[in-house]
Amino acid sequence: MVFTTAKNSYLNDENGVRYIDFLCGAGAINYGHNNEHAKRAVLEYMSTDSILMSLDLHSTSKRAFIDAFQSIILEPRGYSYRMQFTSPTGTSVVESSIKLARKVTGRQNVIAFTNAYHGMSGVSLSLTGNRYHRQSISYGSVTRLPYDRYVDGLDSAELLRQYLRDPSSGVDHPAAVILESIQGEGGLNVASVEWMRKLRDITQEYGIPLIFDEVQAGCGRSGRFFSFERAGIEPDMVCLSKSIGGLGLPMAVLLIKSELDKWRPGEDNGTFRGNNLAFVAATEVLQRYWRDDAFQKALGEKETILRDGLADIAKRYPQKIKGVRGIGLMQGLEFHSGDDTSATIAECFAHKLVVESCGAYDQVLKIMPALTIEPEVLRDGIAIIAKACHRLFADSRADADIGAVAATV
Amino acid sequence: MVFTTAKNSYLNDENGVRYIDFLCGAGAINYGHNNEHAKRAVLEYMSTDSILMSLDLHSTSKRAFIDAFQSIILEPRGYSYRMQFTSPTGTSVVESSIKLARKVTGRQNVIAFTNAYHGMSGVSLSLTGNRYHRQSISYGSVTRLPYDRYVDGLDSAELLRQYLRDPSSGVDHPAAVILESIQGEGGLNVASVEWMRKLRDITQEYGIPLIFDEVQAGCGRSGRFFSFERAGIEPDMVCLSKSIGGLGLPMAVLLIKSELDKWRPGEDNGTFRGNNLAFVAATEVLQRYWRDDAFQKALGEKETILRDGLADIAKRYPQKIKGVRGIGLMQGLEFHSGDDTSATIAECFAHKLVVESCGAYDQVLKIMPALTIEPEVLRDGIAIIAKACHRLFADSRADADIGAVAATV
Amino acid sequence: MVFTTAKNSYLNDENGVRYIDFLCGAGAINYGHNNEHAKRAVLEYMSTDSILMSLDLHSTSKRAFIDAFQSIILEPRGYSYRMQFTSPTGTSVVESSIKLARKVTGRQNVIAFTNAYHGMSGVSLSLTGNRYHRQSISYGSVTRLPYDRYVDGLDSAELLRQYLRDPSSGVDHPAAVILESIQGEGGLNVASVEWMRKLRDITQEYGIPLIFDEVQAGCGRSGRFFSFERAGIEPDMVCLSKSIGGLGLPMAVLLIKSELDKWRPGEDNGTFRGNNLAFVAATEVLQRYWRDDAFQKALGEKETILRDGLADIAKRYPQKIKGVRGIGLMQGLEFHSGDDTSATIAECFAHKLVVESCGAYDQVLKIMPALTIEPEVLRDGIAIIAKACHRLFADSRADADIGAVAATV
Amino acid sequence: MVFTTAKNSYLNDENGVRYIDFLCGAGAINYGHNNEHAKRAVLEYMSTDSILMSLDLHSTSKRAFIDAFQSIILEPRGYSYRMQFTSPTGTSVVESSIKLARKVTGRQNVIAFTNAYHGMSGVSLSLTGNRYHRQSISYGSVTRLPYDRYVDGLDSAELLRQYLRDPSSGVDHPAAVILESIQGEGGLNVASVEWMRKLRDITQEYGIPLIFDEVQAGCGRSGRFFSFERAGIEPDMVCLSKSIGGLGLPMAVLLIKSELDKWRPGEDNGTFRGNNLAFVAATEVLQRYWRDDAFQKALGEKETILRDGLADIAKRYPQKIKGVRGIGLMQGLEFHSGDDTSATIAECFAHKLVVESCGAYDQVLKIMPALTIEPEVLRDGIAIIAKACHRLFADSRADADIGAVAATV
Repeated sequence: MVFTTAKNSYLNDENGVRYIDFLCGAGAINYGHNNEHAKRAVLEYMSTDSILMSLDLHSTSKRAFIDAFQSIILEPRGYSYRMQFTSPTGTSVVESSIKLARKVTGRQNVIAFTNAYHGMSGVSLSLTGNRYHRQSISYGSVTRLPYDRYVDGLDSAELLRQYLRDPSSGVDHPAAVILESIQGEGGLNVASVEWMRKLRDITQEYGIPLIFDEVQAGCGRSGRFFSFERAGIEPDMVCLSKSIGGLGLPMAVLLIKSELDKWRPGEDNGTFRGNNLAFVAATEVLQRYWRDDAFQKALGEKETILRDGLADIAKRYPQKIKGVRGIGLMQGLEFHSGDDTSATIAECFAHKLVVESCGAYDQVLKIMPALTIEPEVLRDGIAIIAKACHRLFADSRADADIGAVAATV
Repeated sequence: MVFTTAKNSYLNDENGVRYIDFLCGAGAINYGHNNEHAKRAVLEYMSTDSILMSLDLHSTSKRAFIDAFQSIILEPRGYSYRMQFTSPTGTSVVESSIKLARKVTGRQNVIAFTNAYHGMSGVSLSLTGNRYHRQSISYGSVTRLPYDRYVDGLDSAELLRQYLRDPSSGVDHPAAVILESIQGEGGLNVASVEWMRKLRDITQEYGIPLIFDEVQAGCGRSGRFFSFERAGIEPDMVCLSKSIGGLGLPMAVLLIKSELDKWRPGEDNGTFRGNNLAFVAATEVLQRYWRDDAFQKALGEKETILRDGLADIAKRYPQKIKGVRGIGLMQGLEFHSGDDTSATIAECFAHKLVVESCGAYDQVLKIMPALTIEPEVLRDGIAIIAKACHRLFADSRADADIGAVAATV
Repeated sequence: MVFTTAKNSYLNDENGVRYIDFLCGAGAINYGHNNEHAKRAVLEYMSTDSILMSLDLHSTSKRAFIDAFQSIILEPRGYSYRMQFTSPTGTSVVESSIKLARKVTGRQNVIAFTNAYHGMSGVSLSLTGNRYHRQSISYGSVTRLPYDRYVDGLDSAELLRQYLRDPSSGVDHPAAVILESIQGEGGLNVASVEWMRKLRDITQEYGIPLIFDEVQAGCGRSGRFFSFERAGIEPDMVCLSKSIGGLGLPMAVLLIKSELDKWRPGEDNGTFRGNNLAFVAATEVLQRYWRDDAFQKALGEKETILRDGLADIAKRYPQKIKGVRGIGLMQGLEFHSGDDTSATIAECFAHKLVVESCGAYDQVLKIMPALTIEPEVLRDGIAIIAKACHRLFADSRADADIGAVAATV
Repeated sequence: MVFTTAKNSYLNDENGVRYIDFLCGAGAINYGHNNEHAKRAVLEYMSTDSILMSLDLHSTSKRAFIDAFQSIILEPRGYSYRMQFTSPTGTSVVESSIKLARKVTGRQNVIAFTNAYHGMSGVSLSLTGNRYHRQSISYGSVTRLPYDRYVDGLDSAELLRQYLRDPSSGVDHPAAVILESIQGEGGLNVASVEWMRKLRDITQEYGIPLIFDEVQAGCGRSGRFFSFERAGIEPDMVCLSKSIGGLGLPMAVLLIKSELDKWRPGEDNGTFRGNNLAFVAATEVLQRYWRDDAFQKALGEKETILRDGLADIAKRYPQKIKGVRGIGLMQGLEFHSGDDTSATIAECFAHKLVVESCGAYDQVLKIMPALTIEPEVLRDGIAIIAKACHRLFADSRADADIGAVAATV
């Protein structure tokens, strides 16, 4: 399977077959493939021999992005951050955030959570939970805590509080607490508002930088620009990448509360931090989609379509599907068995839908359409899933109902 | 305060003042200071120019100890272990156990518990919980888990099971799980039988060596020779030191299930592993106290005296004392405030009782008399504590009762 | 200073001032800014809504790049490698190489050299020498060895051999030896051919993967495509980034001997590994510049112009300049004092030349023009340096000569 | 082979066979087995029920030892140190020294040398060179440097200076430099006076604690009480164990310059730090042997006997023996092959001499008689070695000479 062209919610392979894309570059294509607005801005930028690569130096396109991000995203939400352009990948922005936290606090230990995914480079991998990616190598000091609702009856924020309070707990006061508000790779686990607020209170009480990894859940994916907005909190650092670049071009930004910005000049540097094509596309999509609340409202409507469609499927195959997970346009179906997820993915692919799994056992069918998807295309995609499930899981009794399901979505 | 002589439960300072000893070398003097039987055996051994120091080589006194330990301790309990004579300190025997577990499993991570105390050398310190001793240095891979009943509503054995089962938990399968069945320094926290059994089941299921650190709680301190006997389980390794040497002479032994004994010759060596004076004393006390169950029965009676005496004190000052902790002859009073513990210790010392505190906040008055203590000396010591509390905490209303308390014990 | 447009060897700021660029994106712009061939290919690619971002999946542009790289670069040189598209930064490709080496060998220790620069993320930073970037945090196992000719009289390859041979050296057999054939950031230190061959022999003898970090010195910068070609050796892994992307677009490739490619599917993944714009530009420049040896021949001529020009300057100010360093189009002037380097940089900038320093003390003026630079522009740039030095360092006696120097270059 | 009794330079096995002991508890029996003076002091101490085990508390015997050590050892040599009684093993005193250095400096990295031996617990093992003892586990930050004269033409003290001076060397400024002045286990490698002085200068210049591990080479073994005395330097910390206890009883002392003594009360504690039997023996031997210079003079004479005897042997079998190594009463014969060393040890043992090997390849026959050995017993032992070599290595031509060799020693 070799892809050639792509437009908005569609992917085309070299045989001219068209697929609906419910993977969207693992969340890097929130505004659709070759988003026309962003693409035109990039083509225009290039056609004038504008600078493409500017290291950590200033460029007009970088300045324009900073201005747009401050005025369109941060100020209306009452947030105040400095912006560091880190190396242009999700794992790199996490690396920079932890390096800064360790430098500022003089501490080593970092608290990360079960089922977390923070990337594949050295420090990020030490924070990531997945054993398939982790190697049996030694990692620096990381204390693993259960994510919200990881096991029944445990409030892991309270456990953290006890660890910090107890001078004999054996958990060293950490340089940072890092988390995803919604664990994308980890299985669409959604942290509760109360738990996040408690983490914010505890970290404030103990002077511990709180870092939100918004690489996958940020940039509107959760239904709001930042996925932690729903908790009404302000983290100390925020990691952005993937869709921040507008068109799927490599880019990453670290938001830093000014009191933590203790970098010396050039201390944390890198070659590809000035990827101006990404800056241009990033600025364009901010201006196009986030200036007012129309885009976010439309997101809410699509979130409902997706939830209802998935719920309809889930309730038909309770023996196969545990339920619907996630929020915004990162929702999914949790199967009892990862084998059924795999079978569903294959069946969808055979019917021209690209979709992937997540979760510790690959048990969750993860649906991440473009945020700009037209409602009817969204419904088409859901219908493909519904039919796939029907073919795979329905016994003859249920046959009659499938038309109704497909119609619903 | 400079000590000069000591006999059984008494310490004498250089001014000829005599103290009852409820500290007992932090658990290294279970058989009393200058235990007459052990001392005579040592004097006789030395008087014939018997070898004092024999490295890792064989000596007649080492052989005698091995024979006695196998026949008196292990065989009657149905346990089967090889014995490694490690460097003669508690921290060294823990180091050897972890080194062996890492070698055998090829894994690095070790699971240790909140409030654990395993010693002060590199690896042991990484397992120890106390922040005062730990430095802000980096430690190898250690995953900290809550000890039994550390926070309400959490079954940490189940949490461990989930960590191991979940391929995305972020907790690497460990080289070992190490714990104290009763946390001495950590505050006389007693693991429940159910929790220990569950740990044994889980570690067996996942092929993880389970190590009991019996340095303080072993050698009869808990009321049985091994403190884990009460759970009816057999650990994969057992760390013994402190009172194993009979007279307070440096000695340590690691018990190893034969299938784990993968040491190559001399791989884990050390100079003072052949401290023959300790072997002689150690053999003597095994033969003297553990050949039948009389000693253990007497322990049970003294355990009751101690519990009843402490309970009597505790109930008089509920505003100061939370309750009685511990089992066997390692029991204590938990105060609400470490300041009150300190005041009680000072008051006891002024009245010729040596006793110390433990716990994360030094809030527990820890009472560890010699196991050989005469019941009347035990009662004398408890009475000193009762009077100290009375002087410190009693208001006038309670004055009338103190005679009764002292009489009870 | 805010840059707006850039073309070939020129940068333009927002005031319309034009600069010659001797920095070239720290080596990421080997083919000139907005290289016309590469730019046109990219514009054409985009104009058809070709896929921009394809994760680790296949795309026609990735396939085209692989084919071009194999047939144009690897096969003619007799090299045989598999190609892994890692996250698109220099530090990420290094991370992947070390992760793979540790996985394949089951060892942890890595040997890196003094003055090395391998990037800023966790593992790469542990390999990097510079204290300004390193923090006082703990790093995994890295053994530091002196680079070739680091101290007089020491053959550090022989020292490595002795470390490996001696079972008591304390240097654990490593998972990898990683080095730059020319240390760019480290001060334009050029490893000798003999030393590199010896490293190759030793690592082969002991079964240790030898990794060349060609991020800066590769892609023609040294005068050949790979900087290690001059030693006639084949490393086990080669890290490529920076100019591999043709236009300064983020991209990185790891070359792996097939016997080391033990990755399981998706084990080392990342979002931006399918940056198709970079693939298109990368393919274009390979086909344009490396199909025959004309480009490399021209490089050799420019290398001579640069060396002669720098030597001329160096010999005029022996009290200030120690000598000429480097090879190919990564050469420089080593000053006795970093202050003089800084002054020269500022003076050049004032006269419209962008150039930077390197070395432990920022004592080396590092000159990295585009490989495609016209000889006359190269001479213009050198003349600016010559005049800057003249203004800064010449006493009146030397005044008369400056015309001649400028004329020479 | 099971040992029963031992006196001075003789060991006896359970069959009544007597051996000369040239191993002496790996250097822990400097004053001979069951040294009569020390033994009597211990017996007398015990017979009065004097306190045996006093934790970190004061006792009269500890005070007596401190007074004796200060007045007999430190003051006459012009040294000024505080004394910490660490856990009573060599590895523990090294652990405490490094822990203190890391605490005081706030740094992690420690510099240790090739072929070093510092013990078997976590941190000490990370400093030890021997691969047989080290496991393929990860260690904290240790930078390995070549010991004096490890490879030809390298002055490793100068290399250290360059590492520290160069901000881009990649060698982090260390918390400590630790070394043995004579590497006992490492092969009787003797550091030159010039090299040690240079290390002292460099560490002083950069504010790095310099630690001498005198566990084996101290207490007179080198011919002086401290083996570094010959360099006329004063380390920042000195690790003593093995023979410090006088009779081979477990004991260890860390000497600390007062400005480094930043321990808080009880921060670095341990159970067996108050081994009073060892204090008593230790005090006795200081008073008996070190009050004047008679003992040291006699040592010098025995050093000569040993060197001459070994040199005589070495020159007879140049094809087998590389030469004589070591100083004081820790000298040896270096064979070309470890097999010949093993054969010699076996042959000596068959003729009632206990002697061991050392060195990376077990190629050095290491001779460590009691310092109190009578010259004639020393000669007897050397003669056994000479005869063993004769039997093993002499061809018929050399037969006639053996009588002469034996006579010489």
